[in-house]
Amino acid sequence: MVRICNQINYQLQDYLQGLVNSQPHLKQVDQSPILYCLPKAGQIPIISGGGSGHEPAHAGFVGQGMLTAAVSGPIFVPPSSQDILTAIRHLDQGQGVFLIIKNFEADLQAFSQAIKEARSEGRQVKYVVSHDDISVETSTFQVRHRGLAGTILLHKILGQASLEGASLDQLEELGLAITSQTATIGFATKPPHLPGQDQPLFDLPDHCISYGIGIHGEDGYRTVPFQSSENLAIEIVNKLKLAFRWQEGEDFILLVNNLGTSTDLEQTIFLNDLIQLLQLEGLNLPFIKNGRYMTSLDMAGISVTLCRLADQKWLDYLTAPCQAQAW
Amino acid sequence: MVRICNQINYQLQDYLQGLVNSQPHLKQVDQSPILYCLPKAGQIPIISGGGSGHEPAHAGFVGQGMLTAAVSGPIFVPPSSQDILTAIRHLDQGQGVFLIIKNFEADLQAFSQAIKEARSEGRQVKYVVSHDDISVETSTFQVRHRGLAGTILLHKILGQASLEGASLDQLEELGLAITSQTATIGFATKPPHLPGQDQPLFDLPDHCISYGIGIHGEDGYRTVPFQSSENLAIEIVNKLKLAFRWQEGEDFILLVNNLGTSTDLEQTIFLNDLIQLLQLEGLNLPFIKNGRYMTSLDMAGISVTLCRLADQKWLDYLTAPCQAQAW
Repeated sequence: MVRICNQINYQLQDYLQGLVNSQPHLKQVDQSPILYCLPKAGQIPIISGGGSGHEPAHAGFVGQGMLTAAVSGPIFVPPSSQDILTAIRHLDQGQGVFLIIKNFEADLQAFSQAIKEARSEGRQVKYVVSHDDISVETSTFQVRHRGLAGTILLHKILGQASLEGASLDQLEELGLAITSQTATIGFATKPPHLPGQDQPLFDLPDHCISYGIGIHGEDGYRTVPFQSSENLAIEIVNKLKLAFRWQEGEDFILLVNNLGTSTDLEQTIFLNDLIQLLQLEGLNLPFIKNGRYMTSLDMAGISVTLCRLADQKWLDYLTAPCQAQAW
Repeated sequence: MVRICNQINYQLQDYLQGLVNSQPHLKQVDQSPILYCLPKAGQIPIISGGGSGHEPAHAGFVGQGMLTAAVSGPIFVPPSSQDILTAIRHLDQGQGVFLIIKNFEADLQAFSQAIKEARSEGRQVKYVVSHDDISVETSTFQVRHRGLAGTILLHKILGQASLEGASLDQLEELGLAITSQTATIGFATKPPHLPGQDQPLFDLPDHCISYGIGIHGEDGYRTVPFQSSENLAIEIVNKLKLAFRWQEGEDFILLVNNLGTSTDLEQTIFLNDLIQLLQLEGLNLPFIKNGRYMTSLDMAGISVTLCRLADQKWLDYLTAPCQAQAW
């Protein structure tokens, strides 16, 4: 299997350089894995980040109206607390910074350490933890609550709110409100492979799909033979319905995320089944986004994020134009 | 291998319905494979189309400032002349329509027939044929000149020009000027598979790449073991240099197109090597676009399009905001 790269150890560096060389609004902090754009004077910078292997997350979402900076780590490994701290120091204009963190143990550790150190320097730092995953651990049936593609809605809504002048406290409140209304679940039709390895990260028999997979090669809660796109949509909508216990007539934001290498043809066929089922449930979908946002290397599959539209203002933030190339 | 769909025969219909259901500006002509958006009063409608399997081309480029309508055929089969004629009749506001056609024999036949019939009804129809491919036929060493991802630049530039009031004659002149300055060449790291088939459309040994592939499963002019991203960029830049015989200091538009299932990580690493080589050549790259525009089912690979910027006005057309979701 060919993986286009030069040296595996330089993948992240080459990737970040490719972004900086092709997008004039992006800047890199020295040789670090930190990409940023210039914040508006007085704006609270929004910083996020995580391991690489999820492209375009997170660096592709840097731009006015979305992330001010993204800090990247190696494949599936969060950035170091030192790099996160460097980003905070670089972007803080004196009014503090706001962080968006995905709910994984290693990410929380690195970000917490950086927050602790930044605060000890007298900086104001607030954050939100995205935990939109509603899949279950197969052995315990516990909901996993990892941070998945729902995180991208936080990037966009908080990014626009900060551009429009939201304070640190307002960003925290808004972030909490969104995370409590956001749920994501997906499926894989092909497992991912680490670069340079021909063995997949989990076993998935040919012609089978796995429901509830993660974005780091974690397998799902159930593996079954593929039947049809409609069938996939039924399972996903049922799980989302259990999570939301929605009422007819409610407004939801829908984000359908390609987990890597499904084709646009497949994704849009699935989207069609999904929309029909959600409309049958009587839901309104005033904002639909269908693309690649948070992938898992070469995994094939799709995740579905719904966010209950608790405040119509969120729609304005979502639909505002922004500079980030991957939105 | 799982392909997400319901019935293979309904793939195109389900796909188009998914687009219409998720993008409020898109409309479908009855049950036909024609998606369109409302043209501005007096605007010359821009119509393109082709077989499916190239998503997001062509229907994903329908929107104000780009295509007015896209007519789709089955996988790798152009639309019928009847469907093209229906699109022309539906969109013609009396000032005529402009067509963008990819240079393939079957496409030319279907579009020519439709143009003939539309003209016999008294309609004004002009067109441009995109023929950006600079790869060679292995048996004859003849340049193939198929219509590839360079076609997307025509969609955007002509779409914006028509929105700004260009006449049929002006669109024709502009289209000819662009096609004569546009060249595309690419490589595959994995061949494509037709839906429901486990056999690839051409043989490509593991760990090899093929240069000069087409977008319908046509193999390339040379198959060699993969060495590095930089090595790929060197071959591609050499071929483009032969086609353009550029001078230092010239301005070029660069469009890097994912042919299906390469990852964003791979594509951006390759983009980085490509930009460095083109800058070494002394070229200016005032507009760089990196994404998925014209794919070939689940093929992995990347194509590179350069367009010599003969007129700075083209940049204004390219950078103008537009409604098409896939641009």
